[in-house]
Amino acid sequence: MTLLTGDVLRVVDPFGEQVADVVAFAADDVAERFSSGRTIDYANSIYMTTGNVLYSNRSRPMFTIVADTVGRHDLLLTPCSPETFELLYEGHVGYHPSCFENLSMNLAQFGIAPDDIPTTFNAFMNVSITPSGKIDIAAPLSRAGDHVGLRAEMDLVVGVTACSAEKSNNGTLKPIDIEIVAHWQP
Amino acid sequence: MTLLTGDVLRVVDPFGEQVADVVAFAADDVAERFSSGRTIDYANSIYMTTGNVLYSNRSRPMFTIVADTVGRHDLLLTPCSPETFELLYEGHVGYHPSCFENLSMNLAQFGIAPDDIPTTFNAFMNVSITPSGKIDIAAPLSRAGDHVGLRAEMDLVVGVTACSAEKSNNGTLKPIDIEIVAHWQP
Repeated sequence: MTLLTGDVLRVVDPFGEQVADVVAFAADDVAERFSSGRTIDYANSIYMTTGNVLYSNRSRPMFTIVADTVGRHDLLLTPCSPETFELLYEGHVGYHPSCFENLSMNLAQFGIAPDDIPTTFNAFMNVSITPSGKIDIAAPLSRAGDHVGLRAEMDLVVGVTACSAEKSNNGTLKPIDIEIVAHWQP
Repeated sequence: MTLLTGDVLRVVDPFGEQVADVVAFAADDVAERFSSGRTIDYANSIYMTTGNVLYSNRSRPMFTIVADTVGRHDLLLTPCSPETFELLYEGHVGYHPSCFENLSMNLAQFGIAPDDIPTTFNAFMNVSITPSGKIDIAAPLSRAGDHVGLRAEMDLVVGVTACSAEKSNNGTLKPIDIEIVAHWQP
């Protein structure tokens, strides 16, 4: 989808405990893309919530978080892909749908190559870091109707997918709703 | 620089407490690049040391860490850039050298655009995450002569720069030495 500056993308978890991967590119030049590394660096935090800014690889604001009823999202992990299931899901055999496939198939029409899909903003994904640095993925804290609101700070191409990885969603896969509020005023 | 499969890149901190940003691209197609997100995901850890693999955005091994005398490196933060100093260094005015400039200027000859320099492997950078998710950057644990050895798992274009950010290097900026051991055998 595309957003104009000022539009708010509301990502809603209608049933609870479901992750959505969100990624964005500048509409006028898709080589400018979301950078989790710049975002973490400038916020001095691995967690983002209302008031935080999601930055591009050119250090420009892409989104400001203007609403957040959950307060726990992830910026560390890449969209699940066929390799995710091969490497991390013991006993997995054969095809498995994935965020990476969903995003790359749907972003191709905007001239975005699969290689250029970066680490995503994983709404509702509940990742903690243990003192020794291990990744701990727990059930999302989101309940039915929880949402996060992202105000576009530039014209954007955006991809959103409900996450297909069982470990991220407490074992069940559910839909994600999106709503665009045009030219939202705070 | 370029590395052939099996070469070991040894990144040495000759004086201690100095960070080096390392990034890699597949030599036969530079659209395949280092992915900190895939690396963290597959290791299930934000910290890497001997035995860990650094993955590309295509989920293929680029490097295996074959030596590490420090055991603390960072994969979360992007190379420091002009914007890093504007946004994070209070009182900063004017030009400041940066990892991003060093990498982008020196990788251009290989057809790598600045936009395509991802989050780097920040050797010796000492980043901790507090329980609330805040980033804590402390002095590197490296002492004079400490090093990390990275064995190329594919033919690579590699960029390495001593880091210019005072906060990462305990307030002093020092050189980094590199050594390539051709076709190293374990």
